[in-house]
Amino acid sequence: MRAVALGGGHGLQATLAALRRITPDVTAVVTVADDGGSSGRLRQELGMLPPGDLRKALAALAAEDADGELWSGLFQHRFGGNGALAGHAVGNLVLAGLLDVLGDPVQVLDHACRLLGVRGRVLPMSTGPLDMAADVVGLDSDPDAVRTIRGQVAIASTPGRVKQVRLDTSGSGEVQACPPAVQAVQEADLVLLGPGSWFTSVLPHLLLPELHEALVSTPAQRFVVLNLVPQPGETAGFSPEQHLDVLSQHAPRLGVDAVLADTASVPTPDRLRTAAASLGAQTLLDKIAAPAVPGRHDPTALAASLRAALERRTDRWR
Amino acid sequence: MRAVALGGGHGLQATLAALRRITPDVTAVVTVADDGGSSGRLRQELGMLPPGDLRKALAALAAEDADGELWSGLFQHRFGGNGALAGHAVGNLVLAGLLDVLGDPVQVLDHACRLLGVRGRVLPMSTGPLDMAADVVGLDSDPDAVRTIRGQVAIASTPGRVKQVRLDTSGSGEVQACPPAVQAVQEADLVLLGPGSWFTSVLPHLLLPELHEALVSTPAQRFVVLNLVPQPGETAGFSPEQHLDVLSQHAPRLGVDAVLADTASVPTPDRLRTAAASLGAQTLLDKIAAPAVPGRHDPTALAASLRAALERRTDRWR
Repeated sequence: MRAVALGGGHGLQATLAALRRITPDVTAVVTVADDGGSSGRLRQELGMLPPGDLRKALAALAAEDADGELWSGLFQHRFGGNGALAGHAVGNLVLAGLLDVLGDPVQVLDHACRLLGVRGRVLPMSTGPLDMAADVVGLDSDPDAVRTIRGQVAIASTPGRVKQVRLDTSGSGEVQACPPAVQAVQEADLVLLGPGSWFTSVLPHLLLPELHEALVSTPAQRFVVLNLVPQPGETAGFSPEQHLDVLSQHAPRLGVDAVLADTASVPTPDRLRTAAASLGAQTLLDKIAAPAVPGRHDPTALAASLRAALERRTDRWR
Repeated sequence: MRAVALGGGHGLQATLAALRRITPDVTAVVTVADDGGSSGRLRQELGMLPPGDLRKALAALAAEDADGELWSGLFQHRFGGNGALAGHAVGNLVLAGLLDVLGDPVQVLDHACRLLGVRGRVLPMSTGPLDMAADVVGLDSDPDAVRTIRGQVAIASTPGRVKQVRLDTSGSGEVQACPPAVQAVQEADLVLLGPGSWFTSVLPHLLLPELHEALVSTPAQRFVVLNLVPQPGETAGFSPEQHLDVLSQHAPRLGVDAVLADTASVPTPDRLRTAAASLGAQTLLDKIAAPAVPGRHDPTALAASLRAALERRTDRWR
């Protein structure tokens, strides 16, 4: 089974860790809109793809042998101290160096995959870095006044309410979807959207026309995995069904086959079912939260839930 | 044949490039006293071994296939721009990260050797960074006044005349020779000293008691390869024979079997022969300078000269 997971950050790490338990043919299509932290510093300093989410995806798919653990451990290691390198993940610097040397990010990631023994593939959603903008309300005394907020970090942490995100092409200009990422979606058997920062990690994939079209037209099953908790800032106070509404507003033609959520994170299952049904999806509620790490999915439980959804075990559909 | 080359920088790169043409069993024992450039910044920021000369030795012994070229190219690549990373060689950052993760520099270098497909081994002369001090004259109006100059960069570039170098243990305290480096010298068939910055890359190996003793007592043949040109600063105006005199002052018990030098860089061959003979060495003059790169040895020519010295082809001894 060819599975493609789209997203970024810890959410994508969770789906990749789950998918690798189901199939060896996993492709990660990774958001490259980050403008904060180590990635943001590298992006600003070297004008390159922000490498952080790519690095996390590589680590999530790294071989579970001594070599895979050595190199993924190195990639994930952050320099300490308070000097020029403090906070930089070593893998970000390696990816930045490879990008400098080779130029083509697809080639860079294929080499990094080989180093870490990744089975499957890690691809950026676009070959250049993305800038995002969002229409946000609630920042002024007039509650209907809409302001444009620019940049991933600013959007993710806005105290206002995000209405819509779009690409900001004012600085970097036109950005193309990464062709092998588009192809992977077109040829997939299963496509996963979410979990993750909804506006800044999940929805950006729908903002690139070629990737949007591939997601709409792929013969693959399309699953949406919902977040365990609303994200402070960009989705503070959002219910699970509101996440689906927002998805649908950004991609009205997108059909969904299944919506997976953690039982304890859905206060009103009926409303979620209704919202899912309007996208053509059935709803699967399961215990998929990691017991020890609040806000993180448990890969084994998520894998079991994905298998149940794939096999249409209707006894588990609630 | 087990060959060990001791030194640092471009000089060590030249002997390694020559030795790999003669034998697959090459060990580099690398100076770790650098306190300038990318290495100095890392050393200061992270308190670790300066990685630059180790990186250069790895690159000199890297496999000559696609993988070896990719990873050694990455290691040697320096970030551009004018930000926090500008000037850092990617390999320095990878070695710094591995040192942070694994702690043991010998283990770090063995993993790096595997990544770059190195045949042979790269070892630091000591497991901790070295601080050097030098007695220098000619810095004051009194020509005999001796000043202590501290640090590799300061010594290498002093306008004064270096009389003697020693370890400066005032800051970092006692430093031990790297045990596998000592063992490699003890078990070698051939040991090479030089070329390179004489006081700051070549002589430091003689300042660590265990390594000094191993060099004095090894059953290996001991060859000294002289520099092509005096180094501005630390050996400005030094004749080839003065290089040998200084070596002998720092290691009176060290016997030498052969002294190799470039014909064009020896103005007074008789004086050099006399100085070499006082160490027990014969002198081999050959054309070993790279025609295109002033100040660099030609690896193929140096390899031929080393072979002649090893085979004691007396027709070539001048």
